[in-house]
Amino acid sequence: MAHGPLPDTDLTRHRRLREQGSLDRADLDAILDAGFVCHLGVIVEGRPIVVPTVYGRGEHDLYVHGSVASRSLAGDTPVCVTVTHVDGLVLARSVFEHGVNYRSAMIHGVPRRVTDPEEKTEALRRLTEHATPGQWDYARRPSRKELAATTLLALSLEEASVKIRTGAPDDGDGPDAALGLWAGTLPLTSVWGAPEPDPLLLSGQPAPAHIARREGTRHG
Amino acid sequence: MAHGPLPDTDLTRHRRLREQGSLDRADLDAILDAGFVCHLGVIVEGRPIVVPTVYGRGEHDLYVHGSVASRSLAGDTPVCVTVTHVDGLVLARSVFEHGVNYRSAMIHGVPRRVTDPEEKTEALRRLTEHATPGQWDYARRPSRKELAATTLLALSLEEASVKIRTGAPDDGDGPDAALGLWAGTLPLTSVWGAPEPDPLLLSGQPAPAHIARREGTRHG
Repeated sequence: MAHGPLPDTDLTRHRRLREQGSLDRADLDAILDAGFVCHLGVIVEGRPIVVPTVYGRGEHDLYVHGSVASRSLAGDTPVCVTVTHVDGLVLARSVFEHGVNYRSAMIHGVPRRVTDPEEKTEALRRLTEHATPGQWDYARRPSRKELAATTLLALSLEEASVKIRTGAPDDGDGPDAALGLWAGTLPLTSVWGAPEPDPLLLSGQPAPAHIARREGTRHG
Repeated sequence: MAHGPLPDTDLTRHRRLREQGSLDRADLDAILDAGFVCHLGVIVEGRPIVVPTVYGRGEHDLYVHGSVASRSLAGDTPVCVTVTHVDGLVLARSVFEHGVNYRSAMIHGVPRRVTDPEEKTEALRRLTEHATPGQWDYARRPSRKELAATTLLALSLEEASVKIRTGAPDDGDGPDAALGLWAGTLPLTSVWGAPEPDPLLLSGQPAPAHIARREGTRHG
């Protein structure tokens, strides 16, 4: 996978061994597969716009649900899609060494608008299954009209970079260690809750197994 | 607060009453105060770059920790900062009506680089306290050299927009209700875990109260 001349993220201020880029496609896939909301950056009238939207991963492409901003894109306009998981705070002895444990993927490219109905259906299936495995076979699938009303972008996974920071703070072996202050990390975890039925449902209808079984499981 | 001609986000595909923009400064502050990682969009060599970074809120400005990308910004380059909290999946009867419950704030403007040491210290205090209340008084504060090595941007909160989607799916009163399928939401919550001490600490040193007491509390 190409690792272009991409800027570093600055969730942490120092880049020692604990924060590193990865050239590993498996790391990219793992980060993408762990989430379902990305931040899509586009340029509209000369200024950047960053919108959250949902995505799904294909073999070679990331499928991104089109926003109003992306719908206004010309065919040759570059975008940037970033997916970030925040794993916790890095609480060092010094403020300067504070940071965040995280996993982040950044994908660059000129997106292709998905127009072929078959690919569009498959992309929408991936988006749906990505967020809620089992839901494509459970819910009513899109009609031809709904499919036409949906904007999907495909962005090649070729130009992507991954940044991961894990582990303890970086000032445990410097002069600040002598301060005697506590240092460490404070982990942050996302957890699925109990399904909340639509009030318009007939009462007592249980959530299907593929939804109910996520309760209490970790996301991200 | 100005509500510019900003694009809609497309986490949900329909915009009925359940998803709406807000002109309320209190809503903006609440969304910003609930997080500590934003996605900063900048234009570098004609293409958008979206990097995760940490922020803190001032009275009139958002203070954003500078990234390599933002350090290359000229003084008149617009940026976009987006903060998003994902509250859960909206599982409708039809795939087309699927979406996400979320709160998102988007701030536009030309950032000002914070150079005055006093303002810089105050901005860094806000960043630190924003992520970890109590930490500014606990950890070693930045030296003059560290302060100089830190890039902080101030972005006016004037041009901001807020989008919030809450509640049940939107197809409970349409023809799809007759399908008899379960519909509802699957909530997603972020929770702080137990502090993990730096292995280089002398064993048994407890985390200070302002850190320890966050365990099990909700974030976002």
